[in-house]
Order: sequence, then C-alpha cells, then structure tokens
Amino acid sequence: MNVELISVGTELLLGSVVNTNANYLSKKCAELGLTLYYQTTVGDNYTRLTKVLEECLKRSDIVILTGGLGPTQDDMTKEAVARVLKRDLIIDQHSKDRILEYFHNKSVSLENAQITTNNWKQALTIQGSIVLDNDNGTAPGYIIEDKANNGIKSIILLPGPPSEMIPMFESSVYQYLIGLQDKVLVSKMVKICGIGEAKAETMIEDLINSQTNPTIAPYAKEGEVHFRVTASASTEEEAKQLIWPVIDELKRRFNDNIYSIDENENLEDVVIGLLKKRNMTLTTAESCTGGLLTGRIVNVAGISDVFKEGYITYASEAKMKILGVNKETIDKYGVVSKEVAIEMAEGACKASKSHASIAITGIAGPGGGSQLKPVGLVYIACKVADNIIVKEYNFKGNRQKVRGRAVVSGLDLLRRTLLNIPK
Amino acid sequence: MNVELISVGTELLLGSVVNTNANYLSKKCAELGLTLYYQTTVGDNYTRLTKVLEECLKRSDIVILTGGLGPTQDDMTKEAVARVLKRDLIIDQHSKDRILEYFHNKSVSLENAQITTNNWKQALTIQGSIVLDNDNGTAPGYIIEDKANNGIKSIILLPGPPSEMIPMFESSVYQYLIGLQDKVLVSKMVKICGIGEAKAETMIEDLINSQTNPTIAPYAKEGEVHFRVTASASTEEEAKQLIWPVIDELKRRFNDNIYSIDENENLEDVVIGLLKKRNMTLTTAESCTGGLLTGRIVNVAGISDVFKEGYITYASEAKMKILGVNKETIDKYGVVSKEVAIEMAEGACKASKSHASIAITGIAGPGGGSQLKPVGLVYIACKVADNIIVKEYNFKGNRQKVRGRAVVSGLDLLRRTLLNIPK
Repeated sequence: MNVELISVGTELLLGSVVNTNANYLSKKCAELGLTLYYQTTVGDNYTRLTKVLEECLKRSDIVILTGGLGPTQDDMTKEAVARVLKRDLIIDQHSKDRILEYFHNKSVSLENAQITTNNWKQALTIQGSIVLDNDNGTAPGYIIEDKANNGIKSIILLPGPPSEMIPMFESSVYQYLIGLQDKVLVSKMVKICGIGEAKAETMIEDLINSQTNPTIAPYAKEGEVHFRVTASASTEEEAKQLIWPVIDELKRRFNDNIYSIDENENLEDVVIGLLKKRNMTLTTAESCTGGLLTGRIVNVAGISDVFKEGYITYASEAKMKILGVNKETIDKYGVVSKEVAIEMAEGACKASKSHASIAITGIAGPGGGSQLKPVGLVYIACKVADNIIVKEYNFKGNRQKVRGRAVVSGLDLLRRTLLNIPK
Repeated sequence: MNVELISVGTELLLGSVVNTNANYLSKKCAELGLTLYYQTTVGDNYTRLTKVLEECLKRSDIVILTGGLGPTQDDMTKEAVARVLKRDLIIDQHSKDRILEYFHNKSVSLENAQITTNNWKQALTIQGSIVLDNDNGTAPGYIIEDKANNGIKSIILLPGPPSEMIPMFESSVYQYLIGLQDKVLVSKMVKICGIGEAKAETMIEDLINSQTNPTIAPYAKEGEVHFRVTASASTEEEAKQLIWPVIDELKRRFNDNIYSIDENENLEDVVIGLLKKRNMTLTTAESCTGGLLTGRIVNVAGISDVFKEGYITYASEAKMKILGVNKETIDKYGVVSKEVAIEMAEGACKASKSHASIAITGIAGPGGGSQLKPVGLVYIACKVADNIIVKEYNFKGNRQKVRGRAVVSGLDLLRRTLLNIPK
C-alpha cells in the first residue's frame, strides 16, 4: 500500500520549526511495510492545501496530514479535507466536553488560560470520521475512510506538535494501519552504545547489503546507534522465526555494546533497572553537564526508590565543600582531571549515603580550553560499592553537543561498571 | 519572487535522516524575502523526480534541489533536471580537475580513498550552467537560468550532506539570490512567555489580519510564543522605519510578557543577563525537574560568574538535610506545597550563599497524584535578596511535558521577580 505525508504549517515553510514529524512518520511507515514516495510541506493556505491533497489522493492509498488543527483562523486542515472529500463539518459533543475539561484543569493555574471562541473551532469534526482523543492538547485527530476517489482511501489528520502527534499515532493510528494490511510485522530495535555510527554500519555491512526480510535500518541518535530489524510474515510466529536469527547475529557482532532490544527502553531505564535489581541507590555529581545527566535519570518514572539526591557542583569551591574534593588534588591535577572525577564520585556517595554514583567534570566550551586541556575534554568516574572506574573522553562539537555526549557516556559507563563489561 | 524546495533522497522517505536542509533553506529564503509555498521530498527515482520538477517549474520562479548529486547509479538529480530543461550533460574539465585534487589530498589521510568510475559521473555538468565548487566533498553544485518555461526560472542544485550544502549556499547561492531581487529585509523575533499561543494570537488578530509589510508570523515553542516581524524595503533604513512601529505596538500589547526581541537570545540568557547586571549569584533546588532547570541555566556560556552550585533534592529527606526544610512543614502541608517550595528556595540560598534561587517541587507523574494534588501540580518559588515569590501551576501532559513546562515557568518567574513584574 502507498502512503504519503502532508505536513501543514507556515512555520515549516519559514524554517521556524524542523519537520521532525515527517521523519517520525516515515520511520513508522517503513516499519509498517508501507511504501512512501512523497512528502509534501504546504502552508496554512486553503487553496494550496486543497490542491496538494487532491493530487495526493490520486496517487496514494493513505494520506497522513499533520498540523493545521489548532484553534486560530490560520488553521484550516479540517476545512480543506472536508472540502476535498465533499463532507460537512459538524460539532462533536465529545470533543467539546474534552476541551472544557482541559481548560477547567488549566484555569487553576495562573497562566492566563482562558477559552477563546477560537478554541471551539477544535470541536468541529468532519462528518463520518473517527475522532482520536488528544491527551496532550485540545486538537483531536481524525481518521476518514473515503470511497469516492479511486477505491477506498484513508485520510488521517494529526495535530502538529510532536508531543501531541506521537502519542496519538502510537495509541490509535499504528494499530489502524496494521489493520489495513494482511501481514504481521515484528520489529526489534537493537540499541548500541559505545561504537560510532560509521563503524557500527561497517561491522554489519554484509548483512545490510543482503537484507530482504527481515530488513535492517540504521538510525543515529546522540551518542548511540540503533538498528531496526523488521520481519513481515503472515503470522506473528512466522515473523518471529525470521527475526530471531538476525537479532542473534547482531548480538554476536556487537556483544555487550548492545544495551537493549526493546523499542521502549532507553539507556537510563536499563541503568536504573540494573540498580533496582541490586537494591542499590544512585547519586550524581555534575559539573559541565550541570544537571542534564540527573534530568535524564529523573525522567525514569518511579525513580524515587533509587535516586534521592544529586549535586550540581559547577564551581571548584562547591566540589570541595559539598563533595569533599581536596584542594590539593585540584591544585595539582586541575579541576578537569581523572583525580578530581574520582574524588567527586567518592564524595557524592559519601554525602548522600548512596551505593553508586556518576561524576562528570569537563570543558564544554566555548571558552576554558587550553592546548593541554582542550574544549571537549571530559572525565567521568563511576563508583559502584567499592569499585571505582574513571575514563577520559574527547568530544567534538559545540557546548551543547559536548554536554549531551557526556550525559550518554556517563550512563553507559555506569551500565558497563554494573555489568563488569570492559570499558 | 516564489521559490520552492525539492529534497531528493530515499533516506529521507525511510526516515533514516531528518530533513534539516529544508529547514535551513526555508529560514534563508524567509530572510531573503522570497516566498516559499511548497517543500517536496521525493526519492532517488527518475520518473517521480522529473514529474515533481515539472510541476514546480509551473508555479515557482526559483527551484532549489538538494541531494542526489552523489557518484552512485542511484543519484539522478542532474539527469532529471537536464531532461526537464532539455539540455545535455557534458564533461566539465574544471570539475574533473577538482575531483582529482580532492582524492589526491584525501588519499594521504584516508584509507580506502580511491577514484571509482562512478566518481567521474560527478564531473558531468548540465549545459549552460554555472558550476559551484564544493570545498567539502566531490559533488559540485549548479545554477541554471532557463528561459524556456514561463519566463526566466532559476534552478539551483546543491549536494545533500548539510556539511557540503550549507557552505556552498553561503558562499555563492545567497548572494545570487539577493542579486535576483531589489530589496532589503529586516526581521525581529518578539519572544513572549506567560501567555498561551491561542490567547496571544487573539490579542493581535487585527494586526495579523491586516499585515502586508511588515509581516507577522507566530511560532509556538514549549511554554513560549514567538512572533517574527519582517519588513522589506529598498534600503535597510527604510525597512527599519517600517518595522519599529509594529514592534512598538506589540510591546504595548504584550508589555512585560515580552522577554526579548533578539533572534539569538533565549529565556535563560535574559535571566542570567539580569542577574549579571545586578552582580547577583543564583542557585537552584529541584525536585520533579531533577536537574533539567539547572541543565538549561548551565547552557549559558560563561555561567560560572553567576552559578556555583545547585541541589537536586528528589527525596523529602534530601530537602530536609540539604536545604533545611522543616519536617513539620512537610508533615503539615505535604512535600508538594507552597510552604515547602518557599523553604526550599530559602534553604538553597543559605546553603550556597547565593543571592537568588529557583525552587521547584511538583508531581510530574505518571504516579504520585491524588484528587487533591493531581499529576501536573507544581509549586515554584523564587527568592531574590529578601524578596520571595511563590506560584502554583497545573500543567497538562505526560511526565516529560510537565517537567519541561516547569523549567520554562521557573525561569520566567525569576525574570518577573527580578523585574518586579506582576506575576
């Protein structure tokens, strides 16, 4: 089946927003075995949107539109779709109730939240459509099956903000699209940390080149490499039988660098899971990352059993006062050094009475670098019970990139320390 | 003048790569005052690419294509353009020499660098085109001015990798596009915090509806609303005279909710700037945000004058031990309460000897909520010298969204406290 995407939004045409929706949906369509030939971006303009949609319906079975469902006059995706499909827009009581509820909850806060007449526009639905609830905003989504144009076409409307679009796609649209096809797909995401993208791809070049079913598709993520392996067959059992030998081969090649093959599990989930199994608590001591590492750890729901407190010690004095780092160590080796990282990791465990810790000290730039200690130099120490590991990193890129890479490396170093994997 | 973009590459349709080129070029076109109505992504497919290009040439004056200029058989952008414009492909000696030179330099540093017959494909040029040298790869770019289709059309071909495309655009294409026009553009970004997107747009609906020059375009960002105001005129002075009255009108309407009109300045920059001016230091006490707020503060380069240390006190015990929050306060009001937020803000200033602090305590979910204190309830307290402010928020959405909104609100609350703006 052919699918195509229409991204609606003047902000995309002006470059104010990167179109990550098209990227996300393309990935999902590939995963679902749907063929995607075109992505089109068009502004919030009735005439142009109508024309594009007519063209898409001629050449594709499924059209997914994102954006233009907001409350303002600019937003006209629903109006354009209704026009092309020759359907009416009617008030949907269920959507109206949900908008009321949303604002009722919001108005408790002092954020000037207030229902404008615009908001009621979002309760209008296209006649005969399936309404998809939006748990993260006010604009519902819609699925319309239309028989008027060249056979049955599915037209799917989703809100533009990724934080609303992605949960809606995952909770309803994904299953709907599976239902349109007569095959079963089984997919695993092999998640790798500690090997660069180019190297990882070279390591399985033969597999990628000879792939048919399952398919192997690489995705780069900051500091990580993911390979999606997807098998399609007429039954789930059959698809699984196809997929496992490939997963096993990837495991043989990448070994302990694989931290998960579960789509929904990320690096911090794995690390926190390992600590929970061992009944261990964790603390953090951050300098250049300044809270980003802990921010990611705390993103794990139910973290309170494992994590109680962490320290952001940006200044040298804070490292001494809070973590008990010795002044002599700083004077002798510099504040960005293996020795200071070790004392930070030890001091954090002591101060918080935790079993484990991650400590990061480094130069994120743009200033602060020298020939001997350039921007991007980062030391990370992990303590697990009486075992302490420290490692030197040299990251490339700007301040943000250096800090991001340090966070991933810190989590991975703790994972390896907990599992006794060679660093 | 109308411009449109065609991104060529099967990797974009599979979602292996995010289309940052379209975003970059859209921004640049907006900056140049070119009107962009469509972006199309199409695979490395001769038939589909030819069809798309024919359509684009009917409706736009300038078409910019990125990608598909590589050495492999898959890459066929040049072939498709030559076909549509009815021009020949001929060997360009200059491009041939440059490819030789590139490989000569590379083979010193890179293993496996070797000229394949495929590489010579990159020396083929479209008859009558301006060849753009590629200083970062082997694929040259091209500009073709064609008079055959509906007046003069400019067709611009650029390589796909951003590291090659961007320098080529900046060194030659940008000036070329300015030369096509006879006007100057001045643009300002009005950045607003503390008002929802729908409400902000309603507040200036009359201005948006009557806009011609300058234009006003809204952009939503997590917890913020931005309006880009762009004026075009024949001189910079004239453009400025057009833009300032509109900026002043926006200032009258949004008042202190505007935190910046500088494109490159974000909320944390403004807050840190205000503290620097006052020679004040800042600390943080985070619970549910768990480091995200501080992570954002530390993203400001040269933060060390203002920020020395911060505390992530996730557990109640940590709030008592590190920040001196009273056990009685927690028992009486609960750990998510105004009273605890205030004691956290006070304790953080005391522990770190800082002049100012932001303290956040809340329920990010998914668990931990109750009828009285639901998921999304967050208290933020800001202390500035002897002044202390506390505010209650009710955020919607998942754990990540609640935490993200709390971070923005914390920064904005401190900004308002520093400027004595009514909260």
